[in-house]
Amino acid sequence: MAHPMSVSFLGTSSGGGPTENRNCSSLICDFLGGNNNLWMVDCAEGTTRQFALQPHRQNASRLKMSQVSKLFVTHMHADHIMGITTFLRNILGAPRIDSPPPPSNAISHRRAPIIQIYGPSGLRSFLRQNLKMTFTRCENTYVVHELLCKDDPVIPCNPPVDEHDPMSGSDFKDWDVLHCSEVPGRDIRADNQGLWRDIAPDTHSRRATQIQIHASPILHRGKLMHITRAFVLLTLYPEPCIGYVFNEISYPKRKVVILGDTCDPSPIIPLCSNPRPSLLIHEATDSTISPETDDAGRLSKRQLPDVMKTTLARGHSTTSMAGEFAKLVNAQMLVLNHIGSRFPAPRINDNGQISFARRVLEDLERHATDAWDPPLGHRAIVALDFMRVQVPLPMRETNISTSNLVYSSTSVSAAGPSSVAISTLSLAQSSTVESDTLNSVSGNSRSVEVTGHGVQGVFKPTKPKRKIG
Amino acid sequence: MAHPMSVSFLGTSSGGGPTENRNCSSLICDFLGGNNNLWMVDCAEGTTRQFALQPHRQNASRLKMSQVSKLFVTHMHADHIMGITTFLRNILGAPRIDSPPPPSNAISHRRAPIIQIYGPSGLRSFLRQNLKMTFTRCENTYVVHELLCKDDPVIPCNPPVDEHDPMSGSDFKDWDVLHCSEVPGRDIRADNQGLWRDIAPDTHSRRATQIQIHASPILHRGKLMHITRAFVLLTLYPEPCIGYVFNEISYPKRKVVILGDTCDPSPIIPLCSNPRPSLLIHEATDSTISPETDDAGRLSKRQLPDVMKTTLARGHSTTSMAGEFAKLVNAQMLVLNHIGSRFPAPRINDNGQISFARRVLEDLERHATDAWDPPLGHRAIVALDFMRVQVPLPMRETNISTSNLVYSSTSVSAAGPSSVAISTLSLAQSSTVESDTLNSVSGNSRSVEVTGHGVQGVFKPTKPKRKIG
Repeated sequence: MAHPMSVSFLGTSSGGGPTENRNCSSLICDFLGGNNNLWMVDCAEGTTRQFALQPHRQNASRLKMSQVSKLFVTHMHADHIMGITTFLRNILGAPRIDSPPPPSNAISHRRAPIIQIYGPSGLRSFLRQNLKMTFTRCENTYVVHELLCKDDPVIPCNPPVDEHDPMSGSDFKDWDVLHCSEVPGRDIRADNQGLWRDIAPDTHSRRATQIQIHASPILHRGKLMHITRAFVLLTLYPEPCIGYVFNEISYPKRKVVILGDTCDPSPIIPLCSNPRPSLLIHEATDSTISPETDDAGRLSKRQLPDVMKTTLARGHSTTSMAGEFAKLVNAQMLVLNHIGSRFPAPRINDNGQISFARRVLEDLERHATDAWDPPLGHRAIVALDFMRVQVPLPMRETNISTSNLVYSSTSVSAAGPSSVAISTLSLAQSSTVESDTLNSVSGNSRSVEVTGHGVQGVFKPTKPKRKIG
Repeated sequence: MAHPMSVSFLGTSSGGGPTENRNCSSLICDFLGGNNNLWMVDCAEGTTRQFALQPHRQNASRLKMSQVSKLFVTHMHADHIMGITTFLRNILGAPRIDSPPPPSNAISHRRAPIIQIYGPSGLRSFLRQNLKMTFTRCENTYVVHELLCKDDPVIPCNPPVDEHDPMSGSDFKDWDVLHCSEVPGRDIRADNQGLWRDIAPDTHSRRATQIQIHASPILHRGKLMHITRAFVLLTLYPEPCIGYVFNEISYPKRKVVILGDTCDPSPIIPLCSNPRPSLLIHEATDSTISPETDDAGRLSKRQLPDVMKTTLARGHSTTSMAGEFAKLVNAQMLVLNHIGSRFPAPRINDNGQISFARRVLEDLERHATDAWDPPLGHRAIVALDFMRVQVPLPMRETNISTSNLVYSSTSVSAAGPSSVAISTLSLAQSSTVESDTLNSVSGNSRSVEVTGHGVQGVFKPTKPKRKIG
């Protein structure tokens, strides 16, 4: 039996947030069974506090900040990176009050980094500047590896400083000088295809080599945003965002594709085959809402052309675009992320609003599912904060065609799953979703409630093109 | 009757946080009755979300981000400023998708700022850099006024740029160039006493001139933190933090003193007299804990010399130091803020922990109260997130001596206060505290529950030097 791989969402709002129930972008990949090998993708403001706010689940461990060993940054927008400084302050630790003064810039004096950070050009400078401007000093160290496109400027990894000047490392105008908690990283150049391959080989840990990590630029938006000419400017001034692909090297060879903000992720397609993505996490910032879902017209009055114009102008995707991309790369499971703040997340203990929020959420999923057109019973899932998704095993492993799938919302009990139930569900999608928020408001009508690590639970699919009155 | 003035706490944790129930530093002053005249002091990471997370109170309005017109920053540490970028993104608004391209640097093209930001040297550059590095562009504008000490470097307000180069404003390496959402501010120099007086005169609004705002450096810690020689270095490399004083110009002339992090706020004393502070908000990062409060020794095993050494080395105050300063400036009301993350905030619906957290909190208050030695029945209050404190009216206005005070925890009902109850309480302290979190866990034994704007409620004082077994 393959070990479980999961993704937990710490923030699922677009930059229009944070909202009451959604923080901005951050998620945690647990691909190697914890043990200081949690990997984070993006770190919006408030991410550190999301660790503290995690709901207490019975029989489920909480994510620990201190176990994050890698951080992957998709792009330099505020709703994806403004939490890194506080996060680093917390995991790197404050210096002990009897610790010696900051070392000179001689690298040999520094400890091995406890977190590896990967991201676009500018990230190294961003962290140096924020740590220096806020006079932050830490006990441990970090390292930044920048993924550089052909024309990206190079921020020196380790520029020379005057070792005889004790202030040289703390002068906050020396942006290009290493921070006293930083060790020099690598500049990772794109290959001839414009892709970054095997960006995080780990020769020290046998476990880490179980996952090979690739990355690709995906189109978000231009540096200049004259939106009436958006399409011209997106071409003239591309501001690439990064999508990351996590490939399990050996059996069962699961593949997880996590995209940053994008209106066109097609450059990543070469990394999305052989095998196909087991799990695709795609942004879905905006969407039309069906009149049946919102008969008051609060959200449904916006028509497709207007929604498309705004979404594309800001460099984002609609739910349907996410579904179309899932279809293009033949994804086995699709989770919608980076949800616009106009779409309410279901709230606990608010009977007046739950019903509407639930209907809207299911409408978002339906739009994506319709465009995706997955096998019967599969459907897109809208991410919620604190939701945990199990990466499904490849369907071909079951040796049973999808026509054999059987679903039930009542015959399978999360409290006492039978072997029959387990086998049924492993056929259904080999995937599970858990979220305290979600479960609290949706009962068993939407999500799988997890009792094991990925194949037990209660599952009820959305019927294709079902209408909710 | 004087109009109500209040302070609401959005974040009360020291930099060791955020914790589950405390975000890091930020508070809101409502001194002019709302109406786009809310003033914020500090803006830690997560402050924007705290607005969304405010508890819903019956008959009480929620604070709105959009009503914040001034932001006062005490110092440049991460736990006080890392939320400003997200906060600005939210209140300044995203540009409309059909808005014209960013204007050239000609100031005449810019709108009047909707928020005035005051803070130390470096703040202007910090915001420019973060907004530029995160490619943030906004519909409205902000302005930064820096409070400069004699030797502080000057970051130019409005350095020249080449107006014929359309990229000059968006080149994210031009740190000294205005951000496209910034208008030039002022450099406010300290006077001969080293104080900044009347820093925010407002000639446009008749209402704003009701409050005169002064500021003073207070000692936090040195730029270099070789802590075994802390006291030497604090003197050699002072890193001033700022305390702000808000003076009501006319009757009843209330005065609110809000300190940033400090181990010695004495430079602000000249601003704390005539009249004395109606409300002093003082940091209290650490404290000893009485053995009677924590018989398991989890918090009480740390002895005074060790606590003092650590606290002073990091440039902070203990609860007793806060009380001593309240005594020194003869403060009428003392609220302890910036609480160390080791001291648990009371939680709702957690019967196992409430009792211990409550006892610890009352112990913190007792230590400060003992050092303060206020009139009978007055006591220090530990701030909690979402607590709202009414600024008391000067006691001399009551024309009744403190010996006339009568307290009761049972005879005065918040639900139906009688006129007798009201007059009793107005004598007690002319002040009220409200906090959903607090009320939920403390019943009527600790706080005043507000039904009006400052004089009704339930009040039970801590008896001096009372022991809790």
